[in-house]
Amino acid sequence: MQQDLHKTLDFILEIEKLKSVSRKIKPKGLDRLENSAEHSWQIALLALSLIPYSATSLDSLKVITMLLIHDIVEIDTGDKFAYASNHDDYENEHAAAKRIFALLPETQHHSMLSLWEEFEAAASDEAKFAKGIDRLMPVLQNLNNGGQSWVEHGISVSQILEKNKGVASANPELWEMVKQQVIECGTTLGLKN
Amino acid sequence: MQQDLHKTLDFILEIEKLKSVSRKIKPKGLDRLENSAEHSWQIALLALSLIPYSATSLDSLKVITMLLIHDIVEIDTGDKFAYASNHDDYENEHAAAKRIFALLPETQHHSMLSLWEEFEAAASDEAKFAKGIDRLMPVLQNLNNGGQSWVEHGISVSQILEKNKGVASANPELWEMVKQQVIECGTTLGLKN
Repeated sequence: MQQDLHKTLDFILEIEKLKSVSRKIKPKGLDRLENSAEHSWQIALLALSLIPYSATSLDSLKVITMLLIHDIVEIDTGDKFAYASNHDDYENEHAAAKRIFALLPETQHHSMLSLWEEFEAAASDEAKFAKGIDRLMPVLQNLNNGGQSWVEHGISVSQILEKNKGVASANPELWEMVKQQVIECGTTLGLKN
Repeated sequence: MQQDLHKTLDFILEIEKLKSVSRKIKPKGLDRLENSAEHSWQIALLALSLIPYSATSLDSLKVITMLLIHDIVEIDTGDKFAYASNHDDYENEHAAAKRIFALLPETQHHSMLSLWEEFEAAASDEAKFAKGIDRLMPVLQNLNNGGQSWVEHGISVSQILEKNKGVASANPELWEMVKQQVIECGTTLGLKN
């Protein structure tokens, strides 16, 4: 048991590094980029709030765990902007997942790694839902902060709609609502179509 | 349904403010104070990692949800340093919980508020475990960053041991282990006994 506890503490101190991984978005009212740790916290709560409206029955703990761990790999690889050409970096991220979850005791190492892989592969209803939630959050933030990361990176309305269409997997009605807001916001901000 | 979705989004954008609430501790390797959002993320994962070693059977989702929401009140009240005389601020925090969770649709408003109250009152095995986890994290961080917040605020070894003894509710063996490390660290850093 003592060895397992030591391993658990090694893991929890290692993942502290996620607090220094910057994303492209600034939280409303703050003049700094968001980090991946606080992002993970917010999407876990977004998921908890939206799970009751899901058309399929979901294992909530599985969804939340996926969202809390899915970005941990960025400790090694950094955050990849959703609209960047290097966004798909599965091989490096998988190597990072293997390294970081291996810090945990045996059982948890394998269950966490397997959850991470399931999320990446969108291999279950929970994973599809969680991925939709992960995409939804920066859209909501941009709609609420003057489209900051869209404007700064010259993102077009069609890119936004294409890249985030998976939000419909989490909640189709919400995606329809948000789509309209994106289109209106694009006009207001003068984003390319 | 649309009205519920709007309320959910209002809630999730409101809690973004927790990213600007500073705590007293600096994440290792960073020259800035930790915020309460990223702290909440880390303790949710600390709990997930330690639940398998709990002597009592726990509802994991309940523990994680409590930890993800317990600090949200600080949006209104600010973070209170565990060793400060104003640490107990239940009345103001309760008012904040009522205001913020009321942004959610009816059912979730009541379930979240009730979970927050249960945590504060340590009114269940899950709440006691979660409180232990919340206390454990800054001790681990201090043991790992040269006792930064202990040194900066002149905290003594006996204050640390007294304030954090609830860690034993989460894992008594781990608390024994950590206690020894605190005592040794106190000697190394020259903290008052």
